[in-house]
Amino acid sequence: MDIVSRLIPKLWDLLGDQGLLNDPTRLARYAQDWSGDLTGRPLAVARPARVEDLAQVVRLCAEAGVPVVPQGGHTGLVGGALPSAEGDELVISLERLDCVRGIDPVNFSMVAEAGCVLAALHRAAAEHDLHLPLSLGAQGSCQIGGNVATNAGGVNVLRYGMARDLVLGLEVVLPDGRVWNGLRSLRKNNAGYDLKQLFIGSEGTLGIVTAVALKLYPRPTQVQTVMLGLTSVEAAMTLYAAARRDLSDLLSAFELLPRRCIELTLAANSTLREPLAVPTPVYVLMEASASGLVDLTALMEQFLANCLEREAIIDGVVAMSQAQAGSFWRLREELVEAQHRQGRHLRTDVSVPISGLAAFMAAADAAMARHLPAAIPVVYGHVGDGNLHYNVLPPFGLDPAARDALLYQAEELIFELVDHFDGSISAEHGIGRVKRVPFQHRLSAVDRDLLRAIKSSLDPAGGMSPGRIFMLDES
Amino acid sequence: MDIVSRLIPKLWDLLGDQGLLNDPTRLARYAQDWSGDLTGRPLAVARPARVEDLAQVVRLCAEAGVPVVPQGGHTGLVGGALPSAEGDELVISLERLDCVRGIDPVNFSMVAEAGCVLAALHRAAAEHDLHLPLSLGAQGSCQIGGNVATNAGGVNVLRYGMARDLVLGLEVVLPDGRVWNGLRSLRKNNAGYDLKQLFIGSEGTLGIVTAVALKLYPRPTQVQTVMLGLTSVEAAMTLYAAARRDLSDLLSAFELLPRRCIELTLAANSTLREPLAVPTPVYVLMEASASGLVDLTALMEQFLANCLEREAIIDGVVAMSQAQAGSFWRLREELVEAQHRQGRHLRTDVSVPISGLAAFMAAADAAMARHLPAAIPVVYGHVGDGNLHYNVLPPFGLDPAARDALLYQAEELIFELVDHFDGSISAEHGIGRVKRVPFQHRLSAVDRDLLRAIKSSLDPAGGMSPGRIFMLDES
Repeated sequence: MDIVSRLIPKLWDLLGDQGLLNDPTRLARYAQDWSGDLTGRPLAVARPARVEDLAQVVRLCAEAGVPVVPQGGHTGLVGGALPSAEGDELVISLERLDCVRGIDPVNFSMVAEAGCVLAALHRAAAEHDLHLPLSLGAQGSCQIGGNVATNAGGVNVLRYGMARDLVLGLEVVLPDGRVWNGLRSLRKNNAGYDLKQLFIGSEGTLGIVTAVALKLYPRPTQVQTVMLGLTSVEAAMTLYAAARRDLSDLLSAFELLPRRCIELTLAANSTLREPLAVPTPVYVLMEASASGLVDLTALMEQFLANCLEREAIIDGVVAMSQAQAGSFWRLREELVEAQHRQGRHLRTDVSVPISGLAAFMAAADAAMARHLPAAIPVVYGHVGDGNLHYNVLPPFGLDPAARDALLYQAEELIFELVDHFDGSISAEHGIGRVKRVPFQHRLSAVDRDLLRAIKSSLDPAGGMSPGRIFMLDES
Repeated sequence: MDIVSRLIPKLWDLLGDQGLLNDPTRLARYAQDWSGDLTGRPLAVARPARVEDLAQVVRLCAEAGVPVVPQGGHTGLVGGALPSAEGDELVISLERLDCVRGIDPVNFSMVAEAGCVLAALHRAAAEHDLHLPLSLGAQGSCQIGGNVATNAGGVNVLRYGMARDLVLGLEVVLPDGRVWNGLRSLRKNNAGYDLKQLFIGSEGTLGIVTAVALKLYPRPTQVQTVMLGLTSVEAAMTLYAAARRDLSDLLSAFELLPRRCIELTLAANSTLREPLAVPTPVYVLMEASASGLVDLTALMEQFLANCLEREAIIDGVVAMSQAQAGSFWRLREELVEAQHRQGRHLRTDVSVPISGLAAFMAAADAAMARHLPAAIPVVYGHVGDGNLHYNVLPPFGLDPAARDALLYQAEELIFELVDHFDGSISAEHGIGRVKRVPFQHRLSAVDRDLLRAIKSSLDPAGGMSPGRIFMLDES
């Protein structure tokens, strides 16, 4: 019996029937992510319910030379948490590590295990009149461990930052199976290197996050959600700068939706309605929120009145109820689903300096029109972060090979422009397996040496999520 | 001629008379930091005016096996930037790398070289109606490179975060003299490991920061500065939680000053006046700021009226002018100077979860009263960050040996309590050389291995600021 075959019974002994799955019928759910574009084949799936069991799983795998891949809520978009197709990687699912270890209302913090679903943590915070501001479309499924491992963004980055900015401490199982305890809930700690930063956003390649200490905020008691109609992307950028100043850091979301996006969502979901009386070229979904004594309604009214007066916007509707605010947000959120239904397409997630965003969009549109006139760009984004999803749908009826070639070419065109604008080819989705080649292609020799130095020093055997982000042996 | 003797002429050739100092009379200023508690002896001082020269200096030193120590504005409090007493370390001063490379008002960002003095960057941002919120007592001397290398904190951390939170990108000279270019000004970038995090707060032990891309904010057009009198530290903590909610994230500073601190500053500076009509046990210096359309005056008035009504405060004064606001801040800022004049004393800079702060202070006061009744604690801090400067003055007239023994014992007592409250022995000052022993003493085996792995992988020869933070060969 080889070393791998001996591993499975050991894991079984440790984890039991609920904790180790290797019956193929039970593995399907761990072999695919949300997009369905990629599938993998787990050697088996370990579902430890205790941190010490997870550590023991990692140790046994390290001894057996079996690579491991941590997996959260299957909502990643770059294939980082999927096992390889070769069936040689053990999936470690965090789903049973889902305990909220504590909430401290005076310290404005919580400690939660990695498998907690984000929406559940929102509810747990709200019970203490507190607010966990990490908010993204997938929040009903994604897990906080995955959010941290991928440094998730979402719609409130503008105000509250990325997942990284919300992490006070981490508990991590290292590649050799030891547990690093960095789970303090301090606002300030300059005692030595800030080791937790290494693991945030490293997509499971350096260790497995098992618990997170998070910053919380006062729960907003006032929210103003408005849908605005504008003439152009440039006008939206000008409005953004004005909104930051005039709304005094209370701006929490600023989403750009060109008309084509609104049309796509309306076509895909007949229960949604035109947000404004007359269609406009560009829409902005803007939200401001506040707790306490600020009169946010008056503030927003004044701001919009000023905007109309100086013709910064064509039209605008303030949501008069949570239901109406929800309908605005559905125009944004169901866009993802609407594109998904069109079948395989190119999703990008790029960022450029905010000052270059309008020019980048114009240049990308021009490049697509010139080189790939049949492709259908669907472009929207978190403008306040310089983050655009410049997605591309193939024309209807293209055969798979031609479609894939077109999407590949589209990505190349877009990424070249990103380079030109000194941007990033992955603003929030990460690299995983899907963006590895274009990422690695863009590394300088120094970048490459630093990445390798970190990876080799923390995971010398290379057993943690191998081949995600970059290949050690490829230049 | 040995290898070190050959190095100096090479550096001279490269840098010239202004760029290489090795005349002892010109070295004094680089041999001492602000506190005067520590001195060192530089082998020589290199003052490169270009990044490529700095890189070449590092390369030559690496080849010669001569350790280097980067040095900013000499305002560090833990001796990290001072050369060793043995005279074997080359000081690399960043003072001539002081160019603002650019300001982007739409992207709310700036790029500045490491030697720029913080106050100069404040002015540069203000010229574009923008705000760089990093603010600390030493801002007239400290340099942004040092701020980043030590992850500086200051009075606005509550609202804007530490230096780390303001850094968008870095340019770093690595220990082998290569330049890492990570100087992009993106709000979001999840393409691979976030390498800049390694260098922030690593106190020059992994590389030398040569330029920084920084986040900027809308310039606050309204500031409300108030001095409040309270009955106790507990009351201040309750007030803090209320202020966070009621002032809706517009709170930018919340400084705790027990009566003894006010007395110390008043005694040291006869131009300062009692801030409130009647002395109170505890004072809070609070500031809120806003740009734009918020009516901050009305907001603060309403908040204070509510506080008085529910007896959350005894008394309070709103500054009616910038001059009056300045006089409140001087009561806080001159405290450092006032302690300094008392001669050698213990400065600590600890943090605990905010919910434990009042209990920590009470426990520390009790421990001091019991074990070191002659010592004079002077305690104040950034309450909103759980950060206390629990300092200790020796009684008057103690001989140096007895004084040092007392201060050492006081630190031990305080640090043990910090451990008990799961806090940090260095919230913002860092470790440097001064706090190395207690820091290293508190490391777990896993902590130690991670620190070593990082240091050894980035600086295998150990030539960058050796012995700062931790000794590689000590357990």
